[in-house]
This record gives sequence, C-alpha cells and structure tokens, in this order.
Amino acid sequence: MRALYWDGSAARVIDRPTPTAGPGTAVVRVVWAGVCATDLQLCKGYLSFRGTLGHEFVGQVVEGPAEWMGKRVVGEINFGCGACAECQRGMARHCARRTVMGILDADGAFAERIEVPVENLHEVPDGVRDEAAVFVEPLAAAFEILEQVHVHAGLECTVLGDGKLGLLVAQVLHLTGARVLVVGKHAAKLAFLAKRGIATTMLESWSKKKADVVVEATGTAGGFEAAVAATRPRGKLILKSTVAATAPQDLAPLVVQEITVIGSRCGSFAPALRALRGGSVDVMPLVGGRVPLRDAARALEMAARPGMLKVLIDAS
Amino acid sequence: MRALYWDGSAARVIDRPTPTAGPGTAVVRVVWAGVCATDLQLCKGYLSFRGTLGHEFVGQVVEGPAEWMGKRVVGEINFGCGACAECQRGMARHCARRTVMGILDADGAFAERIEVPVENLHEVPDGVRDEAAVFVEPLAAAFEILEQVHVHAGLECTVLGDGKLGLLVAQVLHLTGARVLVVGKHAAKLAFLAKRGIATTMLESWSKKKADVVVEATGTAGGFEAAVAATRPRGKLILKSTVAATAPQDLAPLVVQEITVIGSRCGSFAPALRALRGGSVDVMPLVGGRVPLRDAARALEMAARPGMLKVLIDAS
Repeated sequence: MRALYWDGSAARVIDRPTPTAGPGTAVVRVVWAGVCATDLQLCKGYLSFRGTLGHEFVGQVVEGPAEWMGKRVVGEINFGCGACAECQRGMARHCARRTVMGILDADGAFAERIEVPVENLHEVPDGVRDEAAVFVEPLAAAFEILEQVHVHAGLECTVLGDGKLGLLVAQVLHLTGARVLVVGKHAAKLAFLAKRGIATTMLESWSKKKADVVVEATGTAGGFEAAVAATRPRGKLILKSTVAATAPQDLAPLVVQEITVIGSRCGSFAPALRALRGGSVDVMPLVGGRVPLRDAARALEMAARPGMLKVLIDAS
Repeated sequence: MRALYWDGSAARVIDRPTPTAGPGTAVVRVVWAGVCATDLQLCKGYLSFRGTLGHEFVGQVVEGPAEWMGKRVVGEINFGCGACAECQRGMARHCARRTVMGILDADGAFAERIEVPVENLHEVPDGVRDEAAVFVEPLAAAFEILEQVHVHAGLECTVLGDGKLGLLVAQVLHLTGARVLVVGKHAAKLAFLAKRGIATTMLESWSKKKADVVVEATGTAGGFEAAVAATRPRGKLILKSTVAATAPQDLAPLVVQEITVIGSRCGSFAPALRALRGGSVDVMPLVGGRVPLRDAARALEMAARPGMLKVLIDAS
C-alpha cells in the first residue's frame, strides 16, 4: 500500500506492507488524514521518529472484530502497554512504555490503511462529516484543557496564537462561558472567531492585559515568555505547543508571580465527538487545503506555509 | 542606628537614619533576624537591590499605635499599595506596586530598628521563643504550598534539597499525612528529619522513583531538571527556589508528561505561627549560628557556606 514515510532525511510516498489485524486490533481504511504541526516537527528530527507519519484520521474498519466491521471510526493515538499502573487507571496516554501513532515507534495514518487497537477506536456519529471527524484528535487536545483546569464564566482567558490549535482552543474555552480573547496575526482567522462571538485582537494592537488563564498556542519560541507576561499573579498558563516548549526559558517569574504552568497534550475523544455532533464547535472553516495521498509530501510543504490552516490528505 | 547596608558592591554595617512611625506604621526594635538564601542572591545582583538587607525578624514594637506598643511581633514582608485589585482581595503579596522588606525598594531587618506597616504585624504567642519566631517567614513560605496544592495522605511527595527551606517544607508536607521523601546531601540534616519520622535518602542512593508532588528546594540550577524527572505524569512540581529558577530550562517534558509547575513564594504568617505555638514543626535545630549585628557582614559569609543552617543576627 502507499504511505508517506519519513526515513530520517525525507518524507516520501513509498510502498509499505499492508497491515493486517492482530489480537485486539483492527485495520482501518483511511479516508481522510490531517497534517499537524507535530508532523512538521518530526520531519525536523523531533523524537528521532522513523516510519509512516500521521495521527489525525477518519476511516472505515475493513478487518478485525465483527462488531467493528464497516464502521466509520477515528482512533486515539496513544497505544499503552495495558499492564502498568497508568494503563490500569485508564491513562494509557501516559504509559511509560506506550507507542504513539505516527509519532513514537508506531506507523501513522498518512497511508491507505492503518492498524489500530480496537480499544482506541471511536465510532463517528451520523451527522459528523468525514472531513470534520479528522479534527477529533486536535479538538480532543483542546478539550483536555477543561479536564485539567476549571475554566468558567468568572474567568478571563487569553489564547496566544491563531493557528489551528489556537482556533480550536478558543472555541472550547468559549463554550464554558469564560471571557476569551484570542491574540493572533491573521485577520481572516480572527474574523472567523469574531463571527462566533469570541473577542480577538491582532498581536500589534494587543493591550497585554493580564488574564486568569492564558493558553500558549503560538508554536513559537517566544510564546512562553509572552504567555508568562500575560498571566496574572497566581494565574494559570496552559502550555500547549511542544514547538515553543523546546526553547530554553527563564523560570524565575513563575516563582515571583506564583504562576501555575500546566503542560497539556492529548485528550479524550469523547467530548470532542460530542461537540462535533452537537455543532458547538465549528471546524469546517479550518480546512485549508486537500491533497491526494500520492502527493502527501506536498501536503507537508503546504502545511508549513505561514498562516496555513488544516491540510487534509485524501487517502480514499 | 546600625544596619547592614548593601550598596551594590559590598554589605557593610553602617550608620543609617533611625526610622520613625508614620501613618499606619510602627517601629519595631529588632531582637533577632535570620539570613536567607535570598539575601545572598541580592548580594549577587538579584533585583538590583540597594538598602538595608533582611526580611526575617522578631522584635518589639517601640513606636506606633498604642494597641501595638510593647508587643513582641513578626512582620509580613510585602507592602502593598492598598488600592489595587490584588490588595483589595487580600493579596498584597502580589500587588504590582508593592515594595518588599529588604528585597525590593524597602529597607530590611538587619538593623536595630525597622518601620513596618501595622497591618503586616503579627503578635508572637507566648510559648514561641524569640529565636523560633525568626523562622515564621520561611515557615510561612513552606505552608504556602498547602494553600496552592491539596497535599494529603494519598500522595507521595518528594522534596529535593535539605537546605533550610527544604527542612521546613518536608516538615509541613509531613503534617498532612502524605508520604514524604527528602533527597539531600547532608547526613546530619537528614537525621534530624528521620527523627521526626520523615523518610530520607542521600542523593547518591536515591531511587529516583516518580512522585505525585515534587518540591524543588535545591537552590541549584540543575534542580528543575531533576524535579521534572522525579514527577510522575500529570503530577505537580512546586518550584520554590528562585536561585534554581534563574537558569534557562527546556519545558518540552512538561507538555509531554502534562506536568503542572506551581511557582511558590511567600505565605501567610498565621498557619506558621500556629504550627510553632503548637510544636508541630521544629525549628530550633535549624539554627546554625548566631552573630551580633555589628558583625552582620560575617553572618552573610557564614550563611554562604555549603550545608550551613540558619544564621541568626543578634540585633538586641
């Protein structure tokens, strides 16, 4: 089968062995897959990954347990060992021996087919379009914030960054009734949020008023320092982008202002699926382009362009 | 009056104007003052402080409102503006316009007398010795952790560092019933904790088992990285030492492990005074030396020696 393979120096569509279902797994025929900033980081050497890229997808089960056959599914990306204390309490996302789809020792979804543990699968409800379902994984990462921090109507929240993740995070925080301000660089993206009733400002016009909760989603090395400066004393700073996090930082202001920094990664798929089904979060305007799987290397190039929204790979 | 003055290049006992009580303030005759690691940092240029050093003290009110005259007191060190939102909600410690005793634009307690806002004063209860009362300020900083994080018997806590603050933090965490392990470098200090039923290990023998709550109190640049490695996924890391925090750090592991970092500084004096009065925390074994005010510069030198416990300055 065709797959976009990262060999450590180049990402190329090559022929790879077609996966088969093993004990507890199913094979999914990929319909759409989405390009994430993490994919671009992996191609810069992050985690020394080698293999088929991709961890955002929607597809159809074509092999595996009878009860899953033919179903339209998305899949959680962390594959736990199933035996350790973290796995036993349902936190396979933090299993020390986990592999991660298209990120850590496991092949990804920029391929015609992908093998996924059945326990990671979620059926996509009717009424959620295929292309919208691709957003479940990043949307789950946005909902993860609400599992970690009690965001409510009494709080002011600032989201730094109007990239793909920032646009999802802003919508999710907005659902809680909190006052959300998004600081961005792209008028068109901010206009999309404004239409949904979310306050926005271009970076150059930002008052830099301190907020109770600040989400760093800029994907830039300077994002953390800006986020610290935007957090009120004893406020909370949600650190989302690993890109920004790889830069060295001075932590002294955290102690003096008693700021809480909360690292935030993957989330549960269930709330994201419910939000897409109910229409409380709008993802279709976040599609920036569509590329067939045979041109998937070009999809990565497109996704790397400044301001580019979600690039979808058509694997059907 | 005599005072230990830091002029930007040297700390010397010189003659300084004797303070008088103004509106809302009292003058305290200092009996004992304690040297803190922050004092040593200030003498290395931290915050570009100039003035009389010292922010841990006990003394007697000799001028001010009648109801305070003659009382034995300690004093909270942050002087808020009284008007801003932070001050209005009782968080003068985070007033953006605050001055801080012996640290930020306000003279400190390594002096015969010090002027303190009355609202910052706390009477020292009978049964608490003068020398023990000097520990109220750092002990309050240890109790601050319990205001920020719910520490309880179901949690494993690791304290990195057996310095003065680490020894106080370990005792405070231990009060909650949590399982506390202190990782240190000085057998005598660890023996003091062991006698109080607190588990300890020398750094070289430490298993590095991950804990739910980790307190970074090493005062070293490498402390943060070690603390991150010692925190379980989704665990909490309390950042106490500004010394360690000034070194640049890689934040990526925080996102991947979803660790929460909580900057922690000064605390309320009330719980610290109650603990000293009730005897639930033992501070007298933490006294490492006593130096008269006229030799206060030597007190700083003593305090800088590796492994040195609390150096007290006798200002009486």
